[in-house]
Amino acid sequence: MAKEFVKEITAMEEDFAQWYTDVVTKADLIDYSSVRGSMIIRPYGYSLWDNIKNELDRRIKETGHENVYMPMFIPESLLQKEKDHIEGFAPEVAWVTHGGSEELAERLVVRPTSEVLFCEHYKNIIHSYRDLPKLYNQWANVVRWEKTTRPFLRTLEFLWQEGHTCHATDEDAHEETTKMLDVYADLCENVLAIPVLKGRKTEKEKFAGAKFTYTIESLMHDGKALQTGTSHHLGDGFAKAFGIQYSDREGELQHVHQTSWGLTTRVIGAMIMVHGDNRGLIIPPRIAPTQLMIVPVAQHKEGVLDFCYELKEKLGKSFRVGIDSSDKKPGWKFNEYEMKGIPLRLEAGPKDIENNQVVLVRRDTGEKLFVQAEGAEQAIAGLLEDIQSGLLEKARDLREQKTENAAGMGEFKQALKDNQGFIKAMWCGRRECEDRIKEETGATSRCIPFEQEHISDVCVCCGNKAEELVYWAKAY
Amino acid sequence: MAKEFVKEITAMEEDFAQWYTDVVTKADLIDYSSVRGSMIIRPYGYSLWDNIKNELDRRIKETGHENVYMPMFIPESLLQKEKDHIEGFAPEVAWVTHGGSEELAERLVVRPTSEVLFCEHYKNIIHSYRDLPKLYNQWANVVRWEKTTRPFLRTLEFLWQEGHTCHATDEDAHEETTKMLDVYADLCENVLAIPVLKGRKTEKEKFAGAKFTYTIESLMHDGKALQTGTSHHLGDGFAKAFGIQYSDREGELQHVHQTSWGLTTRVIGAMIMVHGDNRGLIIPPRIAPTQLMIVPVAQHKEGVLDFCYELKEKLGKSFRVGIDSSDKKPGWKFNEYEMKGIPLRLEAGPKDIENNQVVLVRRDTGEKLFVQAEGAEQAIAGLLEDIQSGLLEKARDLREQKTENAAGMGEFKQALKDNQGFIKAMWCGRRECEDRIKEETGATSRCIPFEQEHISDVCVCCGNKAEELVYWAKAY
Repeated sequence: MAKEFVKEITAMEEDFAQWYTDVVTKADLIDYSSVRGSMIIRPYGYSLWDNIKNELDRRIKETGHENVYMPMFIPESLLQKEKDHIEGFAPEVAWVTHGGSEELAERLVVRPTSEVLFCEHYKNIIHSYRDLPKLYNQWANVVRWEKTTRPFLRTLEFLWQEGHTCHATDEDAHEETTKMLDVYADLCENVLAIPVLKGRKTEKEKFAGAKFTYTIESLMHDGKALQTGTSHHLGDGFAKAFGIQYSDREGELQHVHQTSWGLTTRVIGAMIMVHGDNRGLIIPPRIAPTQLMIVPVAQHKEGVLDFCYELKEKLGKSFRVGIDSSDKKPGWKFNEYEMKGIPLRLEAGPKDIENNQVVLVRRDTGEKLFVQAEGAEQAIAGLLEDIQSGLLEKARDLREQKTENAAGMGEFKQALKDNQGFIKAMWCGRRECEDRIKEETGATSRCIPFEQEHISDVCVCCGNKAEELVYWAKAY
Repeated sequence: MAKEFVKEITAMEEDFAQWYTDVVTKADLIDYSSVRGSMIIRPYGYSLWDNIKNELDRRIKETGHENVYMPMFIPESLLQKEKDHIEGFAPEVAWVTHGGSEELAERLVVRPTSEVLFCEHYKNIIHSYRDLPKLYNQWANVVRWEKTTRPFLRTLEFLWQEGHTCHATDEDAHEETTKMLDVYADLCENVLAIPVLKGRKTEKEKFAGAKFTYTIESLMHDGKALQTGTSHHLGDGFAKAFGIQYSDREGELQHVHQTSWGLTTRVIGAMIMVHGDNRGLIIPPRIAPTQLMIVPVAQHKEGVLDFCYELKEKLGKSFRVGIDSSDKKPGWKFNEYEMKGIPLRLEAGPKDIENNQVVLVRRDTGEKLFVQAEGAEQAIAGLLEDIQSGLLEKARDLREQKTENAAGMGEFKQALKDNQGFIKAMWCGRRECEDRIKEETGATSRCIPFEQEHISDVCVCCGNKAEELVYWAKAY
């Protein structure tokens, strides 16, 4: 294929970070601006987010939650009400100090997360056990003053949803925390084809102000882990700080038990790094803005465009179908839609029409199939399902290949070196060991998985008795 | 009805502003927080916005626009590129001066609107006439540092969509400006049942940096006008300031011609003040989160709940149906759903079931109808249509009653006093007269309507020759 058709991207084996940057820009997902650390989400990138949002919003509503919208500014004094929370977030917030030409009497924070606003509101509207549970969610932008940023993965401003709920008992809050982690895992595995590991964060890595944090972790193509969604059991710490109480059935005042949980535009970064290859993006069919792109071949020949537009009309009833009948060369088009990761390409030219067939090309395997025009719909439906499940399968295999056990620090370092992936190792539970592992290897504790195994009796780091298995990895 | 059932609200004739505040809080649309001038949009309020958003987003996409997302922060230097624009907005922006513990080298503005960010991006991505038109939209939050605020009508932070487009010619941009004003008018009249007046803003009232601004204006129940949506023809001013050029078919470099247009959560305020009454909200059926609320009567009696839930199941296929089978008294429920403006209430008790009938009560007129259970679906469909068109009709009548002509300042003031509505009067086009009218009467020019009439030869203010008819009113 002639060079001029091809948008060049760096090979991922050569420089994974550069590969990523090339893909997000050349697939037209994002653009940079003069706003440091922020990104412009372009139409193709935004339609991905829109699809993810719709899928997740439906699940959030099906589990009984309602959407609300909270102010974006938080007065400094409000943020300070929960001690651990402000300590965790103060170093990374943006401060508004002036409105118009006036200096503000009290500085405002641009929300890094909205626990304190929800708490203030809950205090107003919760009085009785009849008011519980309160299951709220909001779709919003948030800001964290990050030093080093990368599109989708870590940006100054990002889009997310944040759920905030209040419950009568600790058990109810625990159940909610688990339920929403499962919703995230379902979204990741069954829509985005990203296999996830479910577990609990260590004390060191938990959310500022939480009793504990559940997380889903996924493994990128380069062997680094990415925290893909988190669900926090907040206990009654915020409730006590904000005085959120209800009178129970016996008329006694009780503090509520809370949760919060969030999933961000970062998940798009995960999708890119789990599925993409050296020709660009690969989008799982269930989330793809365009599932099938029709490229007419020799479109100036009589009948070709009519044939293709009829197909578009017909297939458009079952799938999200695009057609490119521009005067660009087919080679350019093939590359462009491969770069954009569109799951299937349909080609049809004079010869195909004569044979009453179409050509289907899979983005994931490159496989080319000739199918009868009449049977195209069924073939496409089957292929899209195959691609969807194939992507998940492939990602699972890669994760398995890139997961190793380690019994001691020597093995730990060697495994990390050989494999660049997840290390499974026992841990004594002490912060010192966690810190030392990070210092010596660069890997952090990703999670204490719900599915525990007992691979050794002693801590990988200190050799003392250890009962918990932890997944470790270098991480984004 | 016993007093304790009723959430008291102030009568609108007594104190319209207090009536409004009562309605937005007691219908659970909003709550206040410790963030000055901002509001919490509660689930019921947010579902209204969600419905409006869906209706408008569909229209925006049908007219060929794509959604994107721009950063929320704007570097000061970027905002200053277009002189009129910064002059207009500088007094009302929020300034971010610190990130974490560091003072920023350059201050950031929290976007009051995003023209400059779109311009910077357009400069990057537009090169040839083939790249035009570019038709982008974004759904976002924006901030304007307002001194006096009221829920939905004027808040420090609000939600909106902002369209930003680039075109090859001035005519194309003009056509877009008109088209999107028509989209807004369609949304207001055919979905929200708010009659609108279409016209052009005077030079004084136009958007900072625009060539001209088109507007839709509506009249509230108290006779004040509300600007409900605006569409700006930006000409090539921004394009010149930002250097957005394309090479035309002849290879000559040309500046693009731009538009921008926005509609905000304010439109919810308009809906409240156009349709509401002394029992609370009245929501037009097409936008109502719940169109029909089923209230079982004597629900402890055998068969009542079964009958009602079967109805809900059946009617739920055609309408957005709610049911309240809580142990609250029917009187409380009647009031609650009237306050919330749900278009229709369905009551069914043992006697109705015996007669195989249901009772339908219209929120707008209070009319009570007994219909056979089998025919309920058809009756409801008809009633919802009647309510929808009736609301628009009623609002049109009110606007007509509250619109008067004035030939001189005496008449102007008298009409404003008698009527508290729109004054139609000729204007010479001079800023002095516009300023004097505002000073003497408190009314501002709302628009120069597209549908012109010639009601006098001279300016209502100075008596000089006048050719333009202007609508004036006190406004929100």
